[in-house]
Amino acid sequence: MKQITPRTLSGFMELLPAEQAKMEKMMESLRRSYSLYGFTALDTPLIEASEILLAKGGGDTEKQIYRFTKGDTDLALRFDLTVPLAKYVALNYAELAFPFRRYQIGKVYRGERAQRGRFREFYQADIDIIGDGQLDVANEAEIPSIICRTFKSLGLTKFVIHVNNRKILTGFYEMLGLSEKSGDIMRTVDKLDKIGPEKVHALLVGEEIGLSEPQADEILRFIAIRGTNAEVLNALETYRGKSEQFDLGLDELRAVTAYLPEFGVPEENFAVDLTIARGLDYYTGTVYETLLTEHPEIGSICSGGRYDDLAGYYTDKKLPGVGISIGLTRLFYVLGEQHMLSDEVVTAPADALILPMTENLSFAVRTATALRDAGVRTQLNAEQKKFKAKMNYANKLRVPFVVIIGEDEEKAGLVSVKDMSSGEQVKLTPAQAAEKIRAAIREKDGEALIVE
Amino acid sequence: MKQITPRTLSGFMELLPAEQAKMEKMMESLRRSYSLYGFTALDTPLIEASEILLAKGGGDTEKQIYRFTKGDTDLALRFDLTVPLAKYVALNYAELAFPFRRYQIGKVYRGERAQRGRFREFYQADIDIIGDGQLDVANEAEIPSIICRTFKSLGLTKFVIHVNNRKILTGFYEMLGLSEKSGDIMRTVDKLDKIGPEKVHALLVGEEIGLSEPQADEILRFIAIRGTNAEVLNALETYRGKSEQFDLGLDELRAVTAYLPEFGVPEENFAVDLTIARGLDYYTGTVYETLLTEHPEIGSICSGGRYDDLAGYYTDKKLPGVGISIGLTRLFYVLGEQHMLSDEVVTAPADALILPMTENLSFAVRTATALRDAGVRTQLNAEQKKFKAKMNYANKLRVPFVVIIGEDEEKAGLVSVKDMSSGEQVKLTPAQAAEKIRAAIREKDGEALIVE
Repeated sequence: MKQITPRTLSGFMELLPAEQAKMEKMMESLRRSYSLYGFTALDTPLIEASEILLAKGGGDTEKQIYRFTKGDTDLALRFDLTVPLAKYVALNYAELAFPFRRYQIGKVYRGERAQRGRFREFYQADIDIIGDGQLDVANEAEIPSIICRTFKSLGLTKFVIHVNNRKILTGFYEMLGLSEKSGDIMRTVDKLDKIGPEKVHALLVGEEIGLSEPQADEILRFIAIRGTNAEVLNALETYRGKSEQFDLGLDELRAVTAYLPEFGVPEENFAVDLTIARGLDYYTGTVYETLLTEHPEIGSICSGGRYDDLAGYYTDKKLPGVGISIGLTRLFYVLGEQHMLSDEVVTAPADALILPMTENLSFAVRTATALRDAGVRTQLNAEQKKFKAKMNYANKLRVPFVVIIGEDEEKAGLVSVKDMSSGEQVKLTPAQAAEKIRAAIREKDGEALIVE
Repeated sequence: MKQITPRTLSGFMELLPAEQAKMEKMMESLRRSYSLYGFTALDTPLIEASEILLAKGGGDTEKQIYRFTKGDTDLALRFDLTVPLAKYVALNYAELAFPFRRYQIGKVYRGERAQRGRFREFYQADIDIIGDGQLDVANEAEIPSIICRTFKSLGLTKFVIHVNNRKILTGFYEMLGLSEKSGDIMRTVDKLDKIGPEKVHALLVGEEIGLSEPQADEILRFIAIRGTNAEVLNALETYRGKSEQFDLGLDELRAVTAYLPEFGVPEENFAVDLTIARGLDYYTGTVYETLLTEHPEIGSICSGGRYDDLAGYYTDKKLPGVGISIGLTRLFYVLGEQHMLSDEVVTAPADALILPMTENLSFAVRTATALRDAGVRTQLNAEQKKFKAKMNYANKLRVPFVVIIGEDEEKAGLVSVKDMSSGEQVKLTPAQAAEKIRAAIREKDGEALIVE
């Protein structure tokens, strides 16, 4: 048989079982967190008609997209979950109840140049709340709570949700008479963390943007406003009354911060931050970025914001919304790189491995059935192998419990349960074994996936 | 803005939220069932190099595959989960522990002619047990137990797992001196259900296969063997001693049936059936098909079998295995068509919808947080809408409980919990409300997804 060397394409994450088990736990945790906030699961095709995906068109998207024909249909793989959502909501508008809250965890495709930590196929985990014509700012206030619970459920505590409001920025630039340049200015200011204030200043007064020195100074003074949330809000109050946009943005920012304690978001996990703008012109209100306190170099692990027009390319309906996205594959990758994925969580495919040493398997099979009926993930290993080889197998899989059934045990109707971490071995009935293993696993299930 | 009419490609399933909620339950149930048997989750890329996917080559696969280039790389979308598994095991052989038990639930792509109930993008839910050089028949015996638990967990009881052994068939044809024609014969016999015994007989004696009348009679007599499992096995014993293959197959079939009761498989859900062969030449031992008792026209909803060489196209290692596959998208579709998907399961995105009628949201937000902390999926609706419109929203989503917070409730620190199915409304503390709702939901969670 002609053989082909097996390989996986570069830029495509394919994990070994133990790592995949951690990824599964992460996805399960996200599903649970999102569900707690009343989001419904959605699953849209990975392939769409190219004209649908490229309705907005232009830029990097068209260069990076996987596009091909099948028969005479022009097809493409989705490059994010937002465009398919826009299509879905426009298409199913009459059937949906608004506000429409959906989450979607799915793979998206971007043919970027492959490099370490960059993926061409990667999971995004998105939530969005879509209103029909209007959407209360209370939804924007809820987002930090969702981000907070999502990450805390994973074991992450050292993060800060940075929040700003685009109207504050727009209004501020309006005050300076710089409305037309606000897009360019915001994109420049967005680089502050990467290049520092001097270079931002230089760019602002540079030929391309062409601000005056006082204007650039004023902007840098504004975005340098720091302090507790209350202090920042108070500093912003001094600008009130000069721009309707600004005042509206400040009201919204106050609304978003007002209910944080009641939403269970501690002050330390939240910061009003006037430097974040999000690159996209798409956002019109609150914007969010989430940074790891001790690893700011990773960049935002969860971003999003309020927008006013989800699906203008497909429908006349005005569909404002607010959403956030986690780049799950990248997050998983960087957490691994930082050794922040716990080795204490159970990654074995089974909680119990049954090793029958008897000729007849009846009692072993009955034991397996009893354990499974009790909810214990059980593997039965009846291979023709030596006991030692089987214990090596158990060790390699890091199975928490081995259940040994020899002639003696079979006669007594008992099984020997070996705790693989302590080495302790006890004889129990199958029912007792199930109970013991379940209790131990329940405890281990509380183990946080992420360690700091 | 130039608008494009939103559409989803034909042959691609895209569900409305309530239907998607059922699909999610189905997938969650499969994950749980597979996990109980010690299978590890796997996730492989949807895109592979074409030479990898087409290593085996030929036939419908090449016609149906989605193939395209990106840069100068020849790529294709996976058309099943078996080829990627073979690649994965060959590639990661040194890292894996054998027997390697994995499950994968993922989308695959086949560019078939679109027609009702045929999908171009569809989920397969596969399990496989891969041995290194050898794999005990006990694994083949366990498969019916997995199928049985998987479907019973979904609420399905009226199904029969049909089991045969390819060695019995091969051995039988050997006895008749028809080994070389056995492939053609089996493919013909496989059509028995569809075209009936007369037409099978005609095909067997026809020009293409060219059996004699007595040979065709003998074959039809053989595959007509019916009865309880014990009766069929006893009838097969009368052929023993004439072919080594046959005897080996019969021993394996006895081993597979021997532990059924201990594995928790009732006799009524299992049948030795000499007519099934599975089309593929790939299988070498036990083969499985699963039919709905009252809807045999749907065909097999879960099929598979034992094979001896998983990854010969990628490695010299001998990797025998046994696996089964559920065509999940198709199964979901036909269950819907047959009105077998329950309307009693909770499909709402939230268990509780909080409707604050107060100016200040503090108490409502605290209540939402308390419910979520207690594990109740909670949506907070603070939209500027009339109470009636909000109740319509609750009804449209089929939310089980609405939690109303007016000025009176706020003052008393209570919330009004309305059970939307009974109409009953009671005033409770947020903690009591959480407990009441959780108890009700726990009960509803036991609701079977499939009704017969």
